[in-house]
Amino acid sequence: MPGSSIGQRLVLTSFGESHGRCIGAVLDGCPAGLELEEKDVQKMLDQRKPGQSLVSTQRKEGDVVEILSGVFRGHTTGAPIAMIIWNKDQHSRDYENLVTKMRPGHSDYPALVKYNQYNDYRGGGRFSGRLTATHVMGGAIARKLLKQTLGVETNSYTIKIGKISMNEKFDQKMKSKIYQNEVRCPNQKTAEKMRASILAARKNGDSLGGVIESITTGVPVGLGEPIFSSLESDIAKAIYSIPSVKGVEFGSGFAGSELFGSQNNDPYVTKNGKVSTKTNNSGGILGGLSNGMPITMKVAFKPASSIAKKQSTIDIKTKKAAILQVQGRHDPCVVPRAPPVVDSLVSLVLADHALIGGFIKPVL
Amino acid sequence: MPGSSIGQRLVLTSFGESHGRCIGAVLDGCPAGLELEEKDVQKMLDQRKPGQSLVSTQRKEGDVVEILSGVFRGHTTGAPIAMIIWNKDQHSRDYENLVTKMRPGHSDYPALVKYNQYNDYRGGGRFSGRLTATHVMGGAIARKLLKQTLGVETNSYTIKIGKISMNEKFDQKMKSKIYQNEVRCPNQKTAEKMRASILAARKNGDSLGGVIESITTGVPVGLGEPIFSSLESDIAKAIYSIPSVKGVEFGSGFAGSELFGSQNNDPYVTKNGKVSTKTNNSGGILGGLSNGMPITMKVAFKPASSIAKKQSTIDIKTKKAAILQVQGRHDPCVVPRAPPVVDSLVSLVLADHALIGGFIKPVL
Amino acid sequence: MPGSSIGQRLVLTSFGESHGRCIGAVLDGCPAGLELEEKDVQKMLDQRKPGQSLVSTQRKEGDVVEILSGVFRGHTTGAPIAMIIWNKDQHSRDYENLVTKMRPGHSDYPALVKYNQYNDYRGGGRFSGRLTATHVMGGAIARKLLKQTLGVETNSYTIKIGKISMNEKFDQKMKSKIYQNEVRCPNQKTAEKMRASILAARKNGDSLGGVIESITTGVPVGLGEPIFSSLESDIAKAIYSIPSVKGVEFGSGFAGSELFGSQNNDPYVTKNGKVSTKTNNSGGILGGLSNGMPITMKVAFKPASSIAKKQSTIDIKTKKAAILQVQGRHDPCVVPRAPPVVDSLVSLVLADHALIGGFIKPVL
Amino acid sequence: MPGSSIGQRLVLTSFGESHGRCIGAVLDGCPAGLELEEKDVQKMLDQRKPGQSLVSTQRKEGDVVEILSGVFRGHTTGAPIAMIIWNKDQHSRDYENLVTKMRPGHSDYPALVKYNQYNDYRGGGRFSGRLTATHVMGGAIARKLLKQTLGVETNSYTIKIGKISMNEKFDQKMKSKIYQNEVRCPNQKTAEKMRASILAARKNGDSLGGVIESITTGVPVGLGEPIFSSLESDIAKAIYSIPSVKGVEFGSGFAGSELFGSQNNDPYVTKNGKVSTKTNNSGGILGGLSNGMPITMKVAFKPASSIAKKQSTIDIKTKKAAILQVQGRHDPCVVPRAPPVVDSLVSLVLADHALIGGFIKPVL
Repeated sequence: MPGSSIGQRLVLTSFGESHGRCIGAVLDGCPAGLELEEKDVQKMLDQRKPGQSLVSTQRKEGDVVEILSGVFRGHTTGAPIAMIIWNKDQHSRDYENLVTKMRPGHSDYPALVKYNQYNDYRGGGRFSGRLTATHVMGGAIARKLLKQTLGVETNSYTIKIGKISMNEKFDQKMKSKIYQNEVRCPNQKTAEKMRASILAARKNGDSLGGVIESITTGVPVGLGEPIFSSLESDIAKAIYSIPSVKGVEFGSGFAGSELFGSQNNDPYVTKNGKVSTKTNNSGGILGGLSNGMPITMKVAFKPASSIAKKQSTIDIKTKKAAILQVQGRHDPCVVPRAPPVVDSLVSLVLADHALIGGFIKPVL
Repeated sequence: MPGSSIGQRLVLTSFGESHGRCIGAVLDGCPAGLELEEKDVQKMLDQRKPGQSLVSTQRKEGDVVEILSGVFRGHTTGAPIAMIIWNKDQHSRDYENLVTKMRPGHSDYPALVKYNQYNDYRGGGRFSGRLTATHVMGGAIARKLLKQTLGVETNSYTIKIGKISMNEKFDQKMKSKIYQNEVRCPNQKTAEKMRASILAARKNGDSLGGVIESITTGVPVGLGEPIFSSLESDIAKAIYSIPSVKGVEFGSGFAGSELFGSQNNDPYVTKNGKVSTKTNNSGGILGGLSNGMPITMKVAFKPASSIAKKQSTIDIKTKKAAILQVQGRHDPCVVPRAPPVVDSLVSLVLADHALIGGFIKPVL
Repeated sequence: MPGSSIGQRLVLTSFGESHGRCIGAVLDGCPAGLELEEKDVQKMLDQRKPGQSLVSTQRKEGDVVEILSGVFRGHTTGAPIAMIIWNKDQHSRDYENLVTKMRPGHSDYPALVKYNQYNDYRGGGRFSGRLTATHVMGGAIARKLLKQTLGVETNSYTIKIGKISMNEKFDQKMKSKIYQNEVRCPNQKTAEKMRASILAARKNGDSLGGVIESITTGVPVGLGEPIFSSLESDIAKAIYSIPSVKGVEFGSGFAGSELFGSQNNDPYVTKNGKVSTKTNNSGGILGGLSNGMPITMKVAFKPASSIAKKQSTIDIKTKKAAILQVQGRHDPCVVPRAPPVVDSLVSLVLADHALIGGFIKPVL
Repeated sequence: MPGSSIGQRLVLTSFGESHGRCIGAVLDGCPAGLELEEKDVQKMLDQRKPGQSLVSTQRKEGDVVEILSGVFRGHTTGAPIAMIIWNKDQHSRDYENLVTKMRPGHSDYPALVKYNQYNDYRGGGRFSGRLTATHVMGGAIARKLLKQTLGVETNSYTIKIGKISMNEKFDQKMKSKIYQNEVRCPNQKTAEKMRASILAARKNGDSLGGVIESITTGVPVGLGEPIFSSLESDIAKAIYSIPSVKGVEFGSGFAGSELFGSQNNDPYVTKNGKVSTKTNNSGGILGGLSNGMPITMKVAFKPASSIAKKQSTIDIKTKKAAILQVQGRHDPCVVPRAPPVVDSLVSLVLADHALIGGFIKPVL
């Protein structure tokens, strides 16, 4: 309840701070019998690792995961899987002047009021985007579990950076292209433009936001529970745990709200006895349940709050106006690092529901 | 966990079906000492009641709530508050032919697969929008609790129907105008256009969607918990329990993802020692915590799935193509009935967090 | 969390007060496809009904259950099953003088401090043993579900009233004898002595306690989860929700703590390839998991707190000593009414774990 | 839900295995502002550490706790507190022959059936008593929190080993004597007899059980929630997570069930305006709520299952009878190590309820 855990049958608990000793996760409820080794998790962590290019923060971290429990002879045992990454490259001194000057767009101010002087503000502490690595620790396992047992696979990718959009529809053949560029956009030309816009923003001491699209294929019909555990409810809750997310829509989403019902409804068709829908405006979810079509979602990320440009703010001690220039190494755009995080959270929710609904057994 | 409950410290459990004997709710965890009588709840239920005009379904229901427990001598006791509405005006026969012809955009198909022949399909059963009345039962109490103890108040209203938008910014003075028209748009002229567009769609056997905006004022700083119980996480989870919702954004949302950080960051200012921000692109939430600014959210509703127009679909028994003409009385647009539902769900989440965070005491 | 719900995958929510309009329960998570009608529940409710004899309270209640939701065409649908009993025979005036004179052994005093003047004290309000009928509402369904799907069956019976004990070991052949007498002891001679001792206590304005034993047969191996969701943890939690319970032990329990390990360990044996243990000192639970042997538990009930005898207490207003003579109609011994309640709670926990562990499917 | 977490507002998650890399705990929901350093936790861990004497197992472990997160500048921050102990002195080879010979009284058999070949059986794996060190990690913090904020303090001690009992009533003055001997019995003479009986059992290749009593003083009135979150429910659930526990009773418990109501009821008295009861047969809990009297509980531990004596069992592969002689280093009696574990679990539950009930604030 205090906010560090998610899931009902498959529960992820996150711990750690940006500039503390480590960050870590405990995944409880994973079925016994899943082959698992550290590289399964490391692979996805590497996809979100900072310091990969000019596009993201220059903080360099090995981000090497260690599995501490729950695995025996190369398989999960059914016991909680604890994982840890030791923090290494902290520059905590960079944050000294933040103690009183509230950074616009950051949690500094509400966290200070909520926790008084006790909040660990270094590098954003508990509120840092760095904590999304703990989502990936659990999500990498959930993703493997789903793929292996049900053939379910989530792929997320960048479709917008600032005002630059990828215009063509995603095609499963594009999967292999997502990680071929730094911005994680499967269209190489658009990716190049996106990259340039990020570099321009960085040069200008500014930052950019964007939109991630996520498509999950292979979903069986009937995942999810009506009303408060609808797939949309649980996926949105998970996605909104990412610090910069400010919008989540499924299927035709906001655009669909402008259509007529006769346009937005997805007519059913059968092909070789298999039921599907001609269009997929529902994003694969009806009544909170999966209908067998791909689950599609778009996630809006605000531009990163930490910018090098001078900003006007207040000094919380004097309650007077102040000028702030954020130090430290920051992502000029967090979007390129988000696809594995979105993959992870969607996978965690779907695996949880697959266990609840009996689609995956407690022992493989 | 099975999906009929929401909340941690203030828990709403919903029960009932569209064409069953009743619908009802149990609200557990409400502080003792709140003055409460049925009319407090009835008032908000009346705001979402069907049959109010041509705009919505012609099904006529008194929707009279009875409080069954948890209140003694006009005050809540701290015990669970059970509430019930007896269903009266069901026309279950209208749904006979739906048993095999899957309605596009509805839960029929996934629910049939999930629950086999056991699903109560009458009027959408458990998946009906009618169940949002159970959200209002609990939400009306949460809303009263918040207003009385903290001065927190959520107001939701229609800003878009199909392609017709309200263009001016909402102002607290507009509050009294929301319920002065059938579409719940505080701008009377826009409301009139919206109404006309709904009537045109209905006449055409079609339906419309739209967007609700929700503003919550008086929020103290520090509501919410980091990561998985962020305000955005918990509010979005609650809102996505509404059957037709397909998009939820906070503050500048999707539009904000196109801005630069220097544009989207909200600079802090002080006025008479009180901290606020010049703009409110964050929607009043930073790091998952309230920052004292109004919480603003937009919710996208898809066009209602039940339309009178003929639609192509399949017969699930024969697995062959079929033509469906949905009978029964349906809302050509559910948006006008949604504002009290959105008010309710936001209030439930905020009251829950206010109790968790110690902002409201267990006994008033 | 606020205390009115139990279970994870199969959740029972209880509502109502002793002298309110009704008592009720919502059971969420029951698999779809279970045949269910009111008499399935009524039968178990009748076993705990007051007013059956001189042994228990003279309050007469039809205690007729109505199923309000979750059942369609004679089968459960997977939706929450709401049930209600309307209260009828309240004599609330009997409780007027309790408002200030605190009844020893009752919740009056802590409830007054906790809830201030808002507590519904009539007939014990939310703290009344009457609320155990809501446990039976849910438990009757869980018991039917377990029996039908897994052949699991819990039988509870009285083995001690005051100092009178049943000495022989329970045998499954005794099952049919439990409800052949008013005290629910399967040995008729002992039952007669128990009955006489209760009548003597009543005549003397006093009350008695006792011990219930519970045996569950047909349990598959591996129900339960290690550590905090051990079967013992979850069963004990459920049983301690019964107002008068003050002790719970499994298998050899307190007596076993006096033995040597070589005496208390249950040696494994095989018979026709089936594994069992020679003795059952573990009560069918090892490491928190069922081991396939019958689950055996003993539950200690304190003597009923409401007695006709004059008692010394205090007046909470004046803080002075006072003499109290409890009015109203009370059970001189609650034990004879408890077996169906214990059956219910054990069944709820086991059915919950059977769903969690995949032993029962979400759709039958 | 999968069993590794407990608590609602203050949540402890346990991870690790007896012979894995480490054991650890995450405590989420601890208020910000509590002074905390490793020695606060270490002190209680030392009280349960193995290898202290002949009385318990000869396995030698430093059991040095490291705090990994949630503490900044010597105070808790409100973020989850992760703690870890690295395992060092494993002799996993001792367990090789257990793979097929099922140890009587152990989880081997049900765990094998439940988890198939995936269970980590080394040293009991996830089912080992060693995991109670993770309870102490969280409990030490809860205990400090309760003492500092409310003056609540739990003290547990041995009152029975095998058939040797301490006969006098515990007195708060005895507190300092609990840890003056190896068996944790505050009466030195009885302690000496207990010690001798354990040594005799060990010499004989056998083991003993016993009873721990726990007294909590300083409890405010009104902790706990009615019905399913009664203090007894939540404390019993926690205590039954200890592997060897087979009985839990509060106040007069099983003995009280033999009394008349007029004997067992605790008459209220006032002294200097403070309400208390003459006797404390209720164990400080009425209607599931604390009544301000000390909370008293007795916990029965079965004799340790691992004994050096030869035992008859079965070989699970051949399904034939087999003789087992358990190797490895084991406690001839686990009771002397249990007092800090019981202290911990009671403290965790009470601190959780103190937070839920608003007795402790989220920021100190």
